[in-house]
Amino acid sequence: MQTYSNILVAIDLNDEAEPVSNKARALAQLTGAKLHFMHVTEPLSYAYGGDVPMDLSSIQEQLQEHAQERMTQFMQSANLLAYNKILANGHIETEIHRAAEEIGADLIVVGSHGRHGLALLLGSTSNSVLHGATCDVLAVRI
Amino acid sequence: MQTYSNILVAIDLNDEAEPVSNKARALAQLTGAKLHFMHVTEPLSYAYGGDVPMDLSSIQEQLQEHAQERMTQFMQSANLLAYNKILANGHIETEIHRAAEEIGADLIVVGSHGRHGLALLLGSTSNSVLHGATCDVLAVRI
Repeated sequence: MQTYSNILVAIDLNDEAEPVSNKARALAQLTGAKLHFMHVTEPLSYAYGGDVPMDLSSIQEQLQEHAQERMTQFMQSANLLAYNKILANGHIETEIHRAAEEIGADLIVVGSHGRHGLALLLGSTSNSVLHGATCDVLAVRI
Repeated sequence: MQTYSNILVAIDLNDEAEPVSNKARALAQLTGAKLHFMHVTEPLSYAYGGDVPMDLSSIQEQLQEHAQERMTQFMQSANLLAYNKILANGHIETEIHRAAEEIGADLIVVGSHGRHGLALLLGSTSNSVLHGATCDVLAVRI
């Protein structure tokens, strides 16, 4: 039975990026799947609303450039530059699902902190990614 | 990098058992992991309360025997009899986490319907298993 041929790895650019990408790479080696690494930044307007008395667009641009640099740094340090890199700005789950469809992913890999409790549960990215995904989802325990 | 050595596959005894177990078996072949198949029945008292005017224990026993038979039938038909079989009665998520710890699972595989909506989200087994798991969780899209 074929397992996976296109793996989308959604990473935060923090400590969990490494264990998540290591696990994904090991799985890709076993299955022969293509790897795609993705990072999503959220628009500032999500956190600060539409009626902020200033133009956020230049700050937003700087933040995205910063994310772009950190993503490149991470992929360089983890020896992942050979793989497809995707940066998106928007709702995290929506962008992950959109990218998964675009590349025809059959597996999405995300980090999971395995915390308990309803509030954390509802806020959890791994959980949100799970629901609405049209393919398998692997939550890597951090 | 080592991936998985002990995979716990939690199955419903319905249509989703086959795709979930097929995916788990394919992964086990690739990783060299041991496979353990688990089915959990819930106590009747969870659904009918403690003040039912009859003794549920004999009905409970019959239901568990029935589950045991269906589990064996499924494993026979899917050619899985060589693998470890675990039957438990209790809260589904609690029993899955307990079994995962007992066998030292590093991956739990569950089926996922990928439905949307808060009610379904909160009721979803794959989601509940995800939170509280001390190892990776793979949700296989049905």
